[in-house]
Amino acid sequence: MTLTSTLASVSGQLVSRLFSRGVRSFSTMYSSSESRLTALSKEEVDQFLGSFDTVLSDCDGVLWIDNDEISGASKVLNSLRSMGKRVFYVTNNSTKNRNQFLEKANNMGFIAQKDDILSTGYLAAAYLKSIDFKKKVYVIGSVGITDELEAVGISHLGIGPDVMTDLPTLVNKDFVRDPDVGAVVVGFDEHFSYPKMLKAASYLNDPNCIFIATNTDERFPKKSIVVPGTGSLVRAVETCAERKAMVMGKPEKYISDAIVTNFGVDPKRTLMIGDRSNTDILLGARCGFKTMLVLSGITTLAEVRKWQKSDTPEDKLLVPDVYMKSIGDLLPYLN
Amino acid sequence: MTLTSTLASVSGQLVSRLFSRGVRSFSTMYSSSESRLTALSKEEVDQFLGSFDTVLSDCDGVLWIDNDEISGASKVLNSLRSMGKRVFYVTNNSTKNRNQFLEKANNMGFIAQKDDILSTGYLAAAYLKSIDFKKKVYVIGSVGITDELEAVGISHLGIGPDVMTDLPTLVNKDFVRDPDVGAVVVGFDEHFSYPKMLKAASYLNDPNCIFIATNTDERFPKKSIVVPGTGSLVRAVETCAERKAMVMGKPEKYISDAIVTNFGVDPKRTLMIGDRSNTDILLGARCGFKTMLVLSGITTLAEVRKWQKSDTPEDKLLVPDVYMKSIGDLLPYLN
Repeated sequence: MTLTSTLASVSGQLVSRLFSRGVRSFSTMYSSSESRLTALSKEEVDQFLGSFDTVLSDCDGVLWIDNDEISGASKVLNSLRSMGKRVFYVTNNSTKNRNQFLEKANNMGFIAQKDDILSTGYLAAAYLKSIDFKKKVYVIGSVGITDELEAVGISHLGIGPDVMTDLPTLVNKDFVRDPDVGAVVVGFDEHFSYPKMLKAASYLNDPNCIFIATNTDERFPKKSIVVPGTGSLVRAVETCAERKAMVMGKPEKYISDAIVTNFGVDPKRTLMIGDRSNTDILLGARCGFKTMLVLSGITTLAEVRKWQKSDTPEDKLLVPDVYMKSIGDLLPYLN
Repeated sequence: MTLTSTLASVSGQLVSRLFSRGVRSFSTMYSSSESRLTALSKEEVDQFLGSFDTVLSDCDGVLWIDNDEISGASKVLNSLRSMGKRVFYVTNNSTKNRNQFLEKANNMGFIAQKDDILSTGYLAAAYLKSIDFKKKVYVIGSVGITDELEAVGISHLGIGPDVMTDLPTLVNKDFVRDPDVGAVVVGFDEHFSYPKMLKAASYLNDPNCIFIATNTDERFPKKSIVVPGTGSLVRAVETCAERKAMVMGKPEKYISDAIVTNFGVDPKRTLMIGDRSNTDILLGARCGFKTMLVLSGITTLAEVRKWQKSDTPEDKLLVPDVYMKSIGDLLPYLN
């Protein structure tokens, strides 16, 4: 009897499978036109757990939903950590600084340090520091970005609500261009507005002005209300600036470059855990990470099966190596 | 001596040419891989002027720039009118209602009536009336749209600045969904903001809610300041709504359907005059109009020559049948 079927018979609800070729052939996974799901043997689990030294885990939808921990999440990550694996918390959310993320994680029982948090506000600041940026940043966003800029000694302007006025007043009086601005960073900003678009696009009219976006998530549906995501703000600024932003967050590869450069991580021995295929799993596929999807968030199993059957190479990149119902389902394999 | 060379020798500055095949073969123009420019004979001018009964003229950059008439523009359009041709004023600008456009045109000497003005606010209202729309419209825009809605008895909400607040207050308190809203119209709005994006996207989450954009012009550069155009607002809402808008303005074909339906115009005997190839000339090409580019606005002759040489079918659609330096250069041909 396999470990999976044993557990399924015990809990009656365990959904835990590996693609048949998953453990043994990560590297060829994405070129296969079909990937049959099958149960996992004890040997395969051990082999899988031994195949990575570094874990990148998405947060919302994987470890917690709003302020509630997903059952077993902290025990799983703490166990992986105690097995000697380096664990990073990777989030496209740009509204909190790393200290705020750390406090949230610690309060739920996750054993973590500030350096383990890879937020997009931090990544934007780290990128600017890495190129020895000395000018000011015009920020569409919040303290989740500006606290990280200040931590590396970069000055900024722009956050908080702008005065909403008429266009002639804005153009002729309110907007005084700061000649020291050398970069624009766009993240989540509940005070996003026409004046901010005008200012960002005007700074970006200088081709030497750096253009960074934290992430491009389009929206967050909450029942009948649609909460626009950073991606909607980024598209607005890109359209009037007639330029494309450099994106820090998943699924763009910058995050991989950052951990390789700053932490000496080996992409081939790294596992990406996420709930959203078009950010988390796609990042993993692009960077050569192993990928694990949990079904506790956005992406559904029906979507994965559709992508598996698709002939489109882009769809194949959305198929994870392995998937589980919830990260807590890993716990029995770790004890 | 041709008429063109005569005039050139008189004024010393006339730039007035027709593509060699322009007058005799409008219909095959766009399938030709090259269109040599050459001078125009008296017979060709007369043939050209006799080839259309309806004139659609763009406004900004063709008839006026801000509040200054382009020399000779009103005399040219008035002469065409007195020759028995129907003249329409076609603008993607959604900030004025038709009465305001008419007043501006009349003050500069253009003989026109309200029905001759085809503004995108008017077109949006006319479209909703044509489908017997009975619900409310959530408007991102100004009185240029809402006056036209009121004129056809359609109620609306949304214009003017929203209170800029934090996201929880917005989601839980400020935004009370109006169940009577059945359409969203996005036009130019200097008060565009995050709360407006959230409201529009939430209404548009109902697939039965109609989604209209007045136009998609990206930006208006004014020296060192970039003024975001309606297109930037539309892309923001489209991104968080995860839907595409139906676009009223040039270069989309709705405007042609509207004049055919409402005024019995024959597209084959219609001339489109504009200064911007990717809106005005493209509209004409898509609708089977004859097209005339004036060089008093956005598009340059160098761009036209580049598109002529291009092998890309999309580029060919940007090449006008005829071009002139300024609409005033038509005047000598009309007297």
